[in-house]
Amino acid sequence: MVDTKIAGTITELVTHDIRFPTSRDAHGSDAMNRDPDYSAAYVILETDRGDGITGHGLTFTIGRGTEIVAAAVNALKPLVIGRAIAEFTDAPGAFWKLLTGDSQLRWLGPEKGVIHMATAAVVNALWDLWAKIVGKPLWKLLSDLSPAQIVELVDWRYLTDVLTPEAATRALDALVPTRSARERAIRASGYPAYTTSVGWLGYSDETLRLRCRDAIASGFDAFKMKVGHDVDDDERRAAIIRQEIGPDRALMFDANQRWDVHQAIEWTRRLARYGPRWIEEPTSPDDVLGHAAIARAVEPWGIGVATGEHCPNRVVFKQLMQARAMAFCQLDFCRLGGVNEVVAVQLLAAHFNIPVCPHAGGVGLCEYAPHASVFDYVAVTGSLGNRTVEYVDHLHEHFVHPCVIRDGRYLVPLSPGTNITIKHASLTAHAYPEGSVWRSIRP
Amino acid sequence: MVDTKIAGTITELVTHDIRFPTSRDAHGSDAMNRDPDYSAAYVILETDRGDGITGHGLTFTIGRGTEIVAAAVNALKPLVIGRAIAEFTDAPGAFWKLLTGDSQLRWLGPEKGVIHMATAAVVNALWDLWAKIVGKPLWKLLSDLSPAQIVELVDWRYLTDVLTPEAATRALDALVPTRSARERAIRASGYPAYTTSVGWLGYSDETLRLRCRDAIASGFDAFKMKVGHDVDDDERRAAIIRQEIGPDRALMFDANQRWDVHQAIEWTRRLARYGPRWIEEPTSPDDVLGHAAIARAVEPWGIGVATGEHCPNRVVFKQLMQARAMAFCQLDFCRLGGVNEVVAVQLLAAHFNIPVCPHAGGVGLCEYAPHASVFDYVAVTGSLGNRTVEYVDHLHEHFVHPCVIRDGRYLVPLSPGTNITIKHASLTAHAYPEGSVWRSIRP
Repeated sequence: MVDTKIAGTITELVTHDIRFPTSRDAHGSDAMNRDPDYSAAYVILETDRGDGITGHGLTFTIGRGTEIVAAAVNALKPLVIGRAIAEFTDAPGAFWKLLTGDSQLRWLGPEKGVIHMATAAVVNALWDLWAKIVGKPLWKLLSDLSPAQIVELVDWRYLTDVLTPEAATRALDALVPTRSARERAIRASGYPAYTTSVGWLGYSDETLRLRCRDAIASGFDAFKMKVGHDVDDDERRAAIIRQEIGPDRALMFDANQRWDVHQAIEWTRRLARYGPRWIEEPTSPDDVLGHAAIARAVEPWGIGVATGEHCPNRVVFKQLMQARAMAFCQLDFCRLGGVNEVVAVQLLAAHFNIPVCPHAGGVGLCEYAPHASVFDYVAVTGSLGNRTVEYVDHLHEHFVHPCVIRDGRYLVPLSPGTNITIKHASLTAHAYPEGSVWRSIRP
Repeated sequence: MVDTKIAGTITELVTHDIRFPTSRDAHGSDAMNRDPDYSAAYVILETDRGDGITGHGLTFTIGRGTEIVAAAVNALKPLVIGRAIAEFTDAPGAFWKLLTGDSQLRWLGPEKGVIHMATAAVVNALWDLWAKIVGKPLWKLLSDLSPAQIVELVDWRYLTDVLTPEAATRALDALVPTRSARERAIRASGYPAYTTSVGWLGYSDETLRLRCRDAIASGFDAFKMKVGHDVDDDERRAAIIRQEIGPDRALMFDANQRWDVHQAIEWTRRLARYGPRWIEEPTSPDDVLGHAAIARAVEPWGIGVATGEHCPNRVVFKQLMQARAMAFCQLDFCRLGGVNEVVAVQLLAAHFNIPVCPHAGGVGLCEYAPHASVFDYVAVTGSLGNRTVEYVDHLHEHFVHPCVIRDGRYLVPLSPGTNITIKHASLTAHAYPEGSVWRSIRP
């Protein structure tokens, strides 16, 4: 159903360091990240096909250090340049292992931090290239793959104690006959979203109320608020938001790793009366056992633990699921090693019946995330239950085909590729440090 | 007992990318790392003290990608240059949090991979500087700190659910009266070591036998062998080594992350008859629950699980200990965020009564590791039980004050600092890519 015999060779990989001066306002501030300049290591793949198609991919960063990720992308270049595109499209899983398995670069992870974020940008650019060549949005490309192809694109190393390729294939097989009906349904309805734009730290009461009313008027029925800096201030803002959104709409709290385990439980206990659906990133993203302890404590209050935006790879996700430490899986398209590992985590989540609610916001994550979720619905789980994709309303104007939100739902992306291609003028103006935006800011 | 009021300011941080062409022979080859060029991102701190003392630190890498770690070190420079040395020596824990807490750089980890390895090089250079200024080897500087000072240098975030600063202080307090007796004893005896130089993959039978006989003649009574590539070959080499070393000397197996959980158990079952003390890195270094499952399976065969050289931070170590997934703690001076986090893991290990057997080898790790272990004995645990430091016999000739091994034991380091200062000629010749060693290799 998908053409894997793609002609042509990858001839160049160009890396850009682009940054947006978002620290100049309070958007994006939370208890751990005080002054983010939303940024990206941005990759463009060129080919000798002569059709003008380029593959674009990015990794989201928040300012300083983007040049380190760009250096890591450059270290991966020799693994990509000169390869036939069909090497990737014929066996994307084998190609992913080639990128993550370089015996010297692997020492810098393995599969975590800078080197893995760089892998994500390159891998996502490969998928963008393939999707554009076959003229399909990424979710549709993935949804048209056979179960065997989907299973091939995953690196099963370190997963087989909880899920085997054979079991995953059987689960995917069962959904094949009904894929097209779900595709029609989701194209018509769009995918549920929630908004994080109402509750950043640093907002006044008045701003909070206005943002809530705007979001409700825009059709949202789920709202996320940042917590963890000051419990009294959290109570103040939670009370305002709950008052504005009423008892039936969903409220979520995001602590951005602020707490130790006991503190997380105590703080959440105090905020439980505001009826949150989840407490997000209550402690270190590496602390599987800590998350499990928190999950057990908050479950009787009707609260689930959400985490994943800082989860480095499928092995840690596996454990968060095994330990029932996670009620909502917030995988990230750029923290994980790109599409291949996103799919790996989706298969694990389906196996454990844990809803995937991708992390978004930043630069481009709202463009990427709906692809995973629409694919999840069409081909992986067939369910929308408890599933929702984060939405943050900034920086979309820089994308050629930005995500579109309507009545609190993401429209299903229709343009070929991953929606991540940034306008040329934006790429030039936000180049760091030489772009016009940065030159104009400098004293 | 230690001077913390150090005069002077840090005026410069110079980063070097140095690499040794070790892939040209089979030394250092294992099942996962086929062709390492042992390398380092190497840091030199300069001051305005006028005494000519510089602080040296490194992070061990294995070739490609060292330039990425060097870029990360450079990103940390603004956090260090211009600061009074006393800011660090007065409160090394607060300074560590400053380095790891940069709100933009933190996104690249947090506390893992490239950015954390770069932190290690900088942090270790700060300790080297302090130790040289006060004229003490690092282990002695650490051992002369009060329990309160030791507890201050640790970042307790995410640890307090298993160990509090108060409990750690009490444990350290109990050992203070006997510190000096242990210091005398260990200076006289040296610290137990084991050798990894007998059992690399790629060695012939004859080489194996010769290496075993050499090591026995040198006084070693513990020997490590690489496994995981081919079980029949593992059996062949295990049989040869066991025959050479006899039934009473210790044999350890190192799988370098080759296996999934079930495979690890089956493979170890097959090798159990050769009586290994431990199976090292049986699976993904991120898989706490997987290690726990393996540990439970191999315990009845008298085998412990050893891991840690790829463990990214204290939070993952905490869980490996909580879950009883680790019988031997192989912390790494450069993978962790330097001395401060090494001490954090030592305090956790003491609490759980798990012996610390530091990872060494590579470049400089054998120089660093004895400092941790001698400090462990003098001030943290007071025990040598089941504790041993890895020793690999290469690249020591490049250090001004290399580690010294005698009768299978590390002599206690006596020169001021961390023993990590590399000879100027070695630094120049191995600079990558412009050093003379690399120019002579290039076609």
